[in-house]
Amino acid sequence: MSVQWSERSRKIESFKVMDLLKHAHELSAKGRSIIHLGAGEPDFGAAPHVLDAAKTLLDTTPLTYTPAAGIQELRQAIADFHAQRYGQSISPSNVMVTAGASAGLLLAFTLVAERDRHVLMADPGYPCNRQFLHAIESSAKSIPVEATDNFQLTAAMVEQHWDSATSGVLIASPANPTGAVIDPHELKQIAEVVSRRGGFLVVDEIYHGLTYGAETPTAFSLDPNAIVINSFSKYFGMTGWRLGWVVASESAISEMEKIAQNLFISPSTLSQYAALRAFEPDCLALFETRREELHQRRDLIVKGLLEIGFKIPRMPEGAFYVYADASDLCDDTFEWCWRLLNDAGVVATPGADFGHHHAERFVRFAYTTSQDEIRMALRRIAQFVAKG
Amino acid sequence: MSVQWSERSRKIESFKVMDLLKHAHELSAKGRSIIHLGAGEPDFGAAPHVLDAAKTLLDTTPLTYTPAAGIQELRQAIADFHAQRYGQSISPSNVMVTAGASAGLLLAFTLVAERDRHVLMADPGYPCNRQFLHAIESSAKSIPVEATDNFQLTAAMVEQHWDSATSGVLIASPANPTGAVIDPHELKQIAEVVSRRGGFLVVDEIYHGLTYGAETPTAFSLDPNAIVINSFSKYFGMTGWRLGWVVASESAISEMEKIAQNLFISPSTLSQYAALRAFEPDCLALFETRREELHQRRDLIVKGLLEIGFKIPRMPEGAFYVYADASDLCDDTFEWCWRLLNDAGVVATPGADFGHHHAERFVRFAYTTSQDEIRMALRRIAQFVAKG
Repeated sequence: MSVQWSERSRKIESFKVMDLLKHAHELSAKGRSIIHLGAGEPDFGAAPHVLDAAKTLLDTTPLTYTPAAGIQELRQAIADFHAQRYGQSISPSNVMVTAGASAGLLLAFTLVAERDRHVLMADPGYPCNRQFLHAIESSAKSIPVEATDNFQLTAAMVEQHWDSATSGVLIASPANPTGAVIDPHELKQIAEVVSRRGGFLVVDEIYHGLTYGAETPTAFSLDPNAIVINSFSKYFGMTGWRLGWVVASESAISEMEKIAQNLFISPSTLSQYAALRAFEPDCLALFETRREELHQRRDLIVKGLLEIGFKIPRMPEGAFYVYADASDLCDDTFEWCWRLLNDAGVVATPGADFGHHHAERFVRFAYTTSQDEIRMALRRIAQFVAKG
Repeated sequence: MSVQWSERSRKIESFKVMDLLKHAHELSAKGRSIIHLGAGEPDFGAAPHVLDAAKTLLDTTPLTYTPAAGIQELRQAIADFHAQRYGQSISPSNVMVTAGASAGLLLAFTLVAERDRHVLMADPGYPCNRQFLHAIESSAKSIPVEATDNFQLTAAMVEQHWDSATSGVLIASPANPTGAVIDPHELKQIAEVVSRRGGFLVVDEIYHGLTYGAETPTAFSLDPNAIVINSFSKYFGMTGWRLGWVVASESAISEMEKIAQNLFISPSTLSQYAALRAFEPDCLALFETRREELHQRRDLIVKGLLEIGFKIPRMPEGAFYVYADASDLCDDTFEWCWRLLNDAGVVATPGADFGHHHAERFVRFAYTTSQDEIRMALRRIAQFVAKG
């Protein structure tokens, strides 16, 4: 008799874009020029200072298990950085280091999301959030959001959709796939609704630092019960290093540490020690020049997409994504993205990977490649669209 | 209103030894000489060749996300190593790379352990197994095993304890905390019982390679439906690198890859590329000299503990643990381990961390430190015991 997969496992969905990425890889291997506007990782990589630090560490530091919540020096450095960035003084006991934001989200949901109850979140949104909840026998209740809502939940929506099966709310700001930054006053009001309802608030702030003018206080400064997820992958460019952190109340951190001991043992030791270097002024200055480069790329790609005929009713204010409305150009962006790859050699991610609400209308473009490549991609897309 | 932790989270237990380790750290900081026989990680670290490879990689290889199942080269290298070690030819599609065996266990259980059903496993055993299952709303049903059972489940026990709520069986061999290696014929019979019952078999083989004479075929060669967990932490000495792998049917790997995309994105990129170096003949030769050293340490510590008055009815055949029966020396090993630390400066792990069955009688000694340190620890323990 062959083994059955669990019902839980059958609920967990794969990324629809994976087949498209595989096909892009095959085309590349055949010598086709492919421009990638699909990937959710910046092209910069870690700071050279961090790479040098890592080399030294390989000679000097035993790469043994660390405490489950991370090495004390890094928890302290993150607390200091938090104070510097947000003007809010926190303790290392409010911080835990995680194996990427992925581990942070799993730990947060394991801590607070009750089984058979749901978490309110925006559709479109980061697809894995729903799957973390399936894994622990909880679920997501997706609330459709429009460009006119700034693609974010509002306190009124949370009130309206909250029912006896709701256990809490997830907010992501700046958001994937829309780049939308939530208004701090709205976030504060959402926190109040959640608190009144006795629920929890998890806030994904992994794109903090990558904003282009918007005000982004941390949710932890608006609500001491918020559980805030952050990452070394985006602003710090350390995707493959698998390192993130969580900021929350000391009691929540202590509980999540207990869970992390069991589920993860500890995050990568080399990544933790090397990440200490990323908080030095020279590194932070470098990250600011990268942010300015991303700002220019955003302006370039938004202008180009508008000229081609995409609708982008509101300028994305953060992350490195444009969620463009292609409804004047095609009926189904999933099929359109496949044709774009085959005919024009450009990879973009169809809305279908981020939810259901008007997913067929939208395409996510990631400006994670150089301005020259973006210009070339825009020319290719324009020609592709012109051909019909 | 303050946030409630989930019922799930309240079921997850912390390691009882953590407070003891914290106290040991404080004593060290005050200048006390502390000998650690507590840690489940060898003192050798990664091979120098792997460290050198990592340094080069930092200069040459972009540390971006990888496929969720790991880079193809490493899946191939693991498949080749599997063939070399076990004489069983497998495909890279039978292999996925994971963020440590921790991630492998979580993925395997997420795939096959149904909610509200239980997994049969030995008590004593690795404590996190129970907690992985709590996290996904499944559970463990612990079966007490004795030294006379070789501290392993038997097919008869699996038959006897299987009921309508059983979904599968977990075997760990060599086992933590006992070092016990399961008889391959017994393992094969267990696989047959599980298959007849329509259940699953997960086998933790993370201590494979660290055996001292025992025969250890992989469970995957005995049962094509087995899901086998392995690790770079123990034989390869790469604990803090957080890298492991799973061997299973292609369909199981494909399903677990889908789950891993969502839960982990990918394992550490540097660790994956560096681990390729560990399969070269010079590295494997080094690991064999380390195994021989561990063999000598085992013989040394077992002899010493027996002389002191511990009972070790059966020689542990693998891993780097001795699970010693202290019932002639004390009534409660938890309290005894605290006194041993405070009075003699030796860290050992009380049985309470590994289950309930006769836990108060047993102490786990890890021979993860040098023979000189082990000799010194044995002298200290002997003096401590002599004082009563």
